[in-house]
Amino acid sequence: MTLAGRPPAAALVFRTLLVHGPLTRAELGRRTGLSPGAVTKVAAPLLADGWIAELGRPEGERGSGRPATPMAVRPERARFVGVKVTGDELIGVLTDLTAAPLAARRAPLASRDVDSAVRAVARLVARLRADGGAAAQAGAESPGGVHGIGVTLAGDIDARAGTVQYSPFLDWRQVPLARLVEGAAGVPAVVENDVRALTVAEQWFGAGAGLSSFALVTVGAGIGCGIAVEGRVVSGAYGVAGEAGHLPVGGDRVCTCGNTGCVEAVAATHAITEQARQATGDPELTMAAAVRRAHAGDPAVREVFARAGRALGLAMASIANLVGPQRIVISGEGVASYDLFADAVRAAFRAQAFGAAADCDLVVRPLPFEAWARGGAAVAAQRIFAP
Amino acid sequence: MTLAGRPPAAALVFRTLLVHGPLTRAELGRRTGLSPGAVTKVAAPLLADGWIAELGRPEGERGSGRPATPMAVRPERARFVGVKVTGDELIGVLTDLTAAPLAARRAPLASRDVDSAVRAVARLVARLRADGGAAAQAGAESPGGVHGIGVTLAGDIDARAGTVQYSPFLDWRQVPLARLVEGAAGVPAVVENDVRALTVAEQWFGAGAGLSSFALVTVGAGIGCGIAVEGRVVSGAYGVAGEAGHLPVGGDRVCTCGNTGCVEAVAATHAITEQARQATGDPELTMAAAVRRAHAGDPAVREVFARAGRALGLAMASIANLVGPQRIVISGEGVASYDLFADAVRAAFRAQAFGAAADCDLVVRPLPFEAWARGGAAVAAQRIFAP
Ligand SMILES: [Zn+2]
Ligand SMILES: [Zn+2]
Repeated sequence: MTLAGRPPAAALVFRTLLVHGPLTRAELGRRTGLSPGAVTKVAAPLLADGWIAELGRPEGERGSGRPATPMAVRPERARFVGVKVTGDELIGVLTDLTAAPLAARRAPLASRDVDSAVRAVARLVARLRADGGAAAQAGAESPGGVHGIGVTLAGDIDARAGTVQYSPFLDWRQVPLARLVEGAAGVPAVVENDVRALTVAEQWFGAGAGLSSFALVTVGAGIGCGIAVEGRVVSGAYGVAGEAGHLPVGGDRVCTCGNTGCVEAVAATHAITEQARQATGDPELTMAAAVRRAHAGDPAVREVFARAGRALGLAMASIANLVGPQRIVISGEGVASYDLFADAVRAAFRAQAFGAAADCDLVVRPLPFEAWARGGAAVAAQRIFAP
Repeated sequence: MTLAGRPPAAALVFRTLLVHGPLTRAELGRRTGLSPGAVTKVAAPLLADGWIAELGRPEGERGSGRPATPMAVRPERARFVGVKVTGDELIGVLTDLTAAPLAARRAPLASRDVDSAVRAVARLVARLRADGGAAAQAGAESPGGVHGIGVTLAGDIDARAGTVQYSPFLDWRQVPLARLVEGAAGVPAVVENDVRALTVAEQWFGAGAGLSSFALVTVGAGIGCGIAVEGRVVSGAYGVAGEAGHLPVGGDRVCTCGNTGCVEAVAATHAITEQARQATGDPELTMAAAVRRAHAGDPAVREVFARAGRALGLAMASIANLVGPQRIVISGEGVASYDLFADAVRAAFRAQAFGAAADCDLVVRPLPFEAWARGGAAVAAQRIFAP
């Protein structure tokens, strides 16, 4: 059911077709460094098993193997479920092999107890599989069949081990979530940090597709960040990477990590709310009310958002100065009120980005939780072709 | 004379042997993703041309091609000259294919005029070639032959075009240095930023060899930085990467880039000297004198070095938080008095590095200018096997 057991060159050819779209054998050879003969040899079993197809040739007919015939991935060959877990809700999508959504569903997370959360995930997967059975009427292969599940959530995740090391908002520690979900749903499962999974999805199928390098910065309850260099999402030698929330940007506010002057201490939702309460003298002010007051022109509250924007702009400039991505995508719940940050972000970024690093494209991209869930499906799919 | 024109898989096999040392065909297959048959096919012409050899087999005898016979790069197969250009001196080394030095020379840079600098480089190359002729007596191949020259210097370098875009200390702009050196010396030449070239050399043959990712931070007239991820030195989509000197670390000192609060504004040599002058009230104080006063225990001057150390520690923590390197190597002229920075660097790094990112290994490595010049040779060699 997977590419496991095949030579690594098979995964390389498959991944190249997935990211770059239809390619001839000659183009595949140039991109992979394989000889045309090796490409043909590696592609043959992938063609036979239906993972890829030759374009312009009726399905089922044997390919000619001519070098000029483009080959492409067959999206309908495998299906995945991605689930994003928040503090009170599960968001799930059923996707094809290219992480394109076929169905989406949400379910409340009634309890943060591990067992009931796992059962809730399994129920959501079952419903999405049923939705998929219906979708199969429209021509998809293997109705109801799902190759893998990708569960994503905020926190410290050991993706290799399939373990949630620490999830602050669920208060989970050392939970072997991949194994538990696999047991409950009867389908192979993987676990990944939600921002890193979203970066994978964006890199392959979203705003990062085809770019040599890009970064994703998410603004919300925390400040998240994923960085893709040379076509791979950086994971860090010790499992930590993309921690843009704890870059130092000055100021005297204390961060949840214990340091003073972190980005999160100024720009995360709770930090903005707290600063807006201080600025207005209203200890009950909510984030939504702060946004309303800023939109109504309250200069003190507007300055709170501008300060957050400056911190975010400096963080993005640090990313640009160190890694030099082609594009930085800004997303997360916070971008709903991005107009309040935008000017300060751009001004700080432009001032601090060094030389041509300032050419880096800043793109605001509101992504619903379904897009985050799709990240889980992308990570699950990745296990097939990049084990 | 190069691997150009060979299939990309040849460069991949060659690079893998270069970085990982002797490997059997089976091990090469695992690391490159090529089938054993493809490895044998790709290796044959490299063996025939003497780029690689089978170990334990007398030179010249045809290899058996048995999968268990380890193959290795032949360092004596090609030679390179690396030259580092400073404001008043040229430092040159003659190396073998693995950037191991065979000879070293320095020459004064009498004038910063482009033409005389190019002529001085060509003279230095000629002397090193002559030195190499003598070294050839000791068994090296191709006496006097040099495959390529790598010139490195501080500043904004377009390595692809072979152009010095801007060198502040030589006051050069848009100088097509690779072409000029090539014309004067009669040998193919490349140009690279000196810190990036040093990172290449360290990644392949130094403190970064065999690591999944590492960073190099140099402390001196400027703060330089190179970052290697997944075996490649990050170059940035717009040519800017590793600009650790312009990460924001707070404070009110104005940087040469025009911003306030950059690392360089606190930790570069000129910044330390300036702060030490303010601290002591002695407007003539030199860096050397500041180091002496700090060593003698002057608390105000010691605090200047500690402040610089804190800025460097924060910068390294930013690198660790974003990229998660396995190791950060600290080098540059500044490490001669590293004892004055060390405690503050480690304290700031440990405090700001997020979670397991703090496990990143900090290594101080004094590297003479000859090691920097070797970076030029490594970059020139790289053109052969990673075109
Ligand atoms: Zn923090
Ligand atoms: Zn600066």
